[in-house]
Amino acid sequence: MTLAKLFSQSLNRRVAGLRSPFVNTSSPSTFALKARFFNTSRPRANASSSAKQTASPSPLPSKRWKITKRVGLGLIAASVFCYGVSIYRFRHPDEKQPFPDPSKKTLVILGAGWGATSILRTIDSSLYNVVVVSPRNYFLFTSLLPSTATGSVHSRSIVQPIRYLLRHKSHFVKFYEAECSDIDKDSKVVEIRRQTSDGQELVEQINYDYLVSSVGAETQTFGIPGIEEHGCFLKEMWDSQKIRTRIMKCLEQAQFKNLDPETRRRYVHFVVVGGGPTGMEFAGEMADFIKDDLKSWYPELANDFSVTLIEALPSVLPMFSSKLREYTKSLFAKTNINIRTNTALKEVTPDNIIVEVKDPEGNKVEEAIPFGLLVWAGGNRPRPLINKVIHSLDEQTNRRGLIVDDYMQVNGMQDVFALGDCTSTAYAPTAQVASQQGAFLGQLFNKLGSLDFEKPRIDRHIAVGEELDSAALISLANEKHASTKVFRPFKYSHQGSLAYVGHEKAIADLNVPFLDKQIHASGYLAFFFWRSAYLSELYSLRNRTNVMLDWIRTSLFGRDISSL
Amino acid sequence: MTLAKLFSQSLNRRVAGLRSPFVNTSSPSTFALKARFFNTSRPRANASSSAKQTASPSPLPSKRWKITKRVGLGLIAASVFCYGVSIYRFRHPDEKQPFPDPSKKTLVILGAGWGATSILRTIDSSLYNVVVVSPRNYFLFTSLLPSTATGSVHSRSIVQPIRYLLRHKSHFVKFYEAECSDIDKDSKVVEIRRQTSDGQELVEQINYDYLVSSVGAETQTFGIPGIEEHGCFLKEMWDSQKIRTRIMKCLEQAQFKNLDPETRRRYVHFVVVGGGPTGMEFAGEMADFIKDDLKSWYPELANDFSVTLIEALPSVLPMFSSKLREYTKSLFAKTNINIRTNTALKEVTPDNIIVEVKDPEGNKVEEAIPFGLLVWAGGNRPRPLINKVIHSLDEQTNRRGLIVDDYMQVNGMQDVFALGDCTSTAYAPTAQVASQQGAFLGQLFNKLGSLDFEKPRIDRHIAVGEELDSAALISLANEKHASTKVFRPFKYSHQGSLAYVGHEKAIADLNVPFLDKQIHASGYLAFFFWRSAYLSELYSLRNRTNVMLDWIRTSLFGRDISSL
Repeated sequence: MTLAKLFSQSLNRRVAGLRSPFVNTSSPSTFALKARFFNTSRPRANASSSAKQTASPSPLPSKRWKITKRVGLGLIAASVFCYGVSIYRFRHPDEKQPFPDPSKKTLVILGAGWGATSILRTIDSSLYNVVVVSPRNYFLFTSLLPSTATGSVHSRSIVQPIRYLLRHKSHFVKFYEAECSDIDKDSKVVEIRRQTSDGQELVEQINYDYLVSSVGAETQTFGIPGIEEHGCFLKEMWDSQKIRTRIMKCLEQAQFKNLDPETRRRYVHFVVVGGGPTGMEFAGEMADFIKDDLKSWYPELANDFSVTLIEALPSVLPMFSSKLREYTKSLFAKTNINIRTNTALKEVTPDNIIVEVKDPEGNKVEEAIPFGLLVWAGGNRPRPLINKVIHSLDEQTNRRGLIVDDYMQVNGMQDVFALGDCTSTAYAPTAQVASQQGAFLGQLFNKLGSLDFEKPRIDRHIAVGEELDSAALISLANEKHASTKVFRPFKYSHQGSLAYVGHEKAIADLNVPFLDKQIHASGYLAFFFWRSAYLSELYSLRNRTNVMLDWIRTSLFGRDISSL
Repeated sequence: MTLAKLFSQSLNRRVAGLRSPFVNTSSPSTFALKARFFNTSRPRANASSSAKQTASPSPLPSKRWKITKRVGLGLIAASVFCYGVSIYRFRHPDEKQPFPDPSKKTLVILGAGWGATSILRTIDSSLYNVVVVSPRNYFLFTSLLPSTATGSVHSRSIVQPIRYLLRHKSHFVKFYEAECSDIDKDSKVVEIRRQTSDGQELVEQINYDYLVSSVGAETQTFGIPGIEEHGCFLKEMWDSQKIRTRIMKCLEQAQFKNLDPETRRRYVHFVVVGGGPTGMEFAGEMADFIKDDLKSWYPELANDFSVTLIEALPSVLPMFSSKLREYTKSLFAKTNINIRTNTALKEVTPDNIIVEVKDPEGNKVEEAIPFGLLVWAGGNRPRPLINKVIHSLDEQTNRRGLIVDDYMQVNGMQDVFALGDCTSTAYAPTAQVASQQGAFLGQLFNKLGSLDFEKPRIDRHIAVGEELDSAALISLANEKHASTKVFRPFKYSHQGSLAYVGHEKAIADLNVPFLDKQIHASGYLAFFFWRSAYLSELYSLRNRTNVMLDWIRTSLFGRDISSL
């Protein structure tokens, strides 16, 4: 916008400037000459007035334009320069990152999601030997995952290889792309495993002084048969790629001529189960894909496409205000997305979804819904590692996740912390919570680390050779320095909720800080807010550039329809 | 380049212009004033000379700049306008594309590669009911496939969904994403099959009047055991994705601490077998990936990376001139790509490649080369469908591909044509040959079709109700219209060969048309030629924009290192 404006202004100026040199150069001098010719008694006065006119301090409109232009160009040049410097810095990580130092404590972080990367960004890597273990070597910006499933945004645009972050820390951070298979809390060791490309299994033991579990969660299927075989999840990048492949398969198989019309309609019936933000966003994206692209490239199927959203609860989007829920419902009705609430999934067969609904008399009735694609955007369940930990500890009584204290220390384990979706707290399992918890833990470790280094400060209270665990250190520091409150418990501050609902419209419930007020926004404006919020939340300049280019690309050329 | 130049020119102008109003306005007038002051006898002459200077018709440098600037801006505006119009047209295919007409002949085209799309571009779709059958619904720009394997270019950037082409033809063209499983030449029917997303198999029969086989070929493994299990091909997009996954796996598994140094080096030893352009380009891209990205993001492995190229013949790149072969060899030596010629692959185990070399005495010796990634860029072998056809016909005596006549009619089959890699001709199996053959066939069908429509022209020679096959039609038309030479045999015109060899350098052997002269180019200039040639060869504005953006993206941010 700014660029276009500047460009048009500079064009206007150029057009206006065509005549100005002649006007400017000829008028004062000819005027002065004429004056001297006809009235020789006032040559000096005239000359000085002409000089004054040239050097007049009140800016002419043309001068004002010039200043605006120069300031604008200066700003552009400065932005380009800053952009260049950021890229240069990004491409040239420190070549002499100090390698691990055995005298320091080892901090092991499991995971590379919102929580883990938030710790890694905050932490001072000179205080610990930091080791990160995750089965994927990149951070995934999950908020834009529904967009990658239809192809509005490239997969690679919303991932940030974890090494891009680690290589820019002041000290070396070791990364393993591996699964953590076991935690031995007594000998303080984690066991990690991975398959090699030649079919072997690599296993390694890592000793830790502090351990953070930010492994997230798996998709909860509530034991409903058939979901994993015939449906798709929407949690990881491979899920999104599976959805994309399935959509293209459905479209192509629906092209066969000798299909009966019912089968054809079934193939291009896209069903989403789960009325949370992920499910709603995917339904909206799917409707966009149909409207913007598929209808014109697959004209034979134009009247067969349909999208249905199924939710077991009486309402979708429970975390949004009722006004925005109503808005979304009416928008979905307009965009032909069929919302079915109070409809519980019971079973999935290769071609039908069996749901349970109440008939007008209030009896529960089973119904079969034919489908081509099923996306299951259900809840969370703990990963096997977390289940193992929960079952091995008496202190862990909640099957939904790890119980932690106010400092995110896992109950029943020494020096082990947990955050995000693998814990069972009062907070919703969102990126926002995990990020804030990560930043909190990062700062906590920075404080713990400096306590270790500045031993004299608390040495008086610790016997020589005595090693205190994190809980003891925290309480000791808080006790001895009660006035400064070294460690404070974690407090979550909710910023709001945002969701894209299709048709270039979004909904937003925003908390205004300090005012204790909520703003509810919907429509195009909320959509622009959604885009700018996500752009600014994205991990790096690289991600931002890529996503922005993807959005431009999609609006120009549409979404790709190759079966890739 | 042009934009940057224009921008810098306009900046220079602006800087120069800062002082010009003062200089311009003050100098003539002060000069005139001074002259009048000291030499009052020549006021008029002076004044008129100053006026002349101002109104001089010969353009001042500033005026010339302005004209240049305006022309430049005009050109930019025109390009933006044309770009916009092209995109608008692309996004708005004809909504009323006429559907098939049973009175017309049916032309079935098998494949969606270089040959098939070249026919589809050339053909007048109003003359036939055109049906296209291919197991993938997109055209793949194979020349840039090695770049996608390392991530220099996005996969989606070099594919063109076939419907983007078909929907812009004047008449509807039916597309099936399916495998052709059988051709019944007697009843003129092809059988197509595909798997559905719910595990069924769809089968359909399509009647044809004319059939074109442009199904390409499979990768030839010469029966060497272990290649398919432990190696990767480089022919289709999924091969490229497999290579990419394998590279990332190798890098991550080499990070494990308790590996012995030999295993670590083995994991990051990337081996390419096959010294043709594909193999060489991949080796070059891999060396770039290591130099530009991996060394700085994986500092622990910086000294372990290696790339080896293995070729059974005494020399690589046999289609290039000896000068360019030598150039490539010396460049590879500089960039630490190890070339081993006269080395024949015998077997592949999960961790070793067994090759046969000659020892100094000339005896054949077996050697084991440990590897992390093996890319097999070998030759071609016919697909199962083509093998079936060859075995069913006495006229087909060559096991390497279909034997066709000068008009690409398959020997022993009526109204069946074949081109490209599924045929056995004197030409190399390249994109260039297939494209030219496709354009030739497209024109041939246009002529055949108009013969059908303009029956009066040859009706005298055909009995009423008599249906002639393509061969008879061609010879009849040529016989009766000998002077105009309606149908001429296919003639290949070699434009040259191009290959990227890494380090932003390429090699090019170019045929200068009409001069019968060859140009050999190498280095940076050839690299720029390579890029511009590929950009212009790319299928659409969409592809060109995407590839250009990818190149910019890669040079700014480097290649992505996420395990996606």
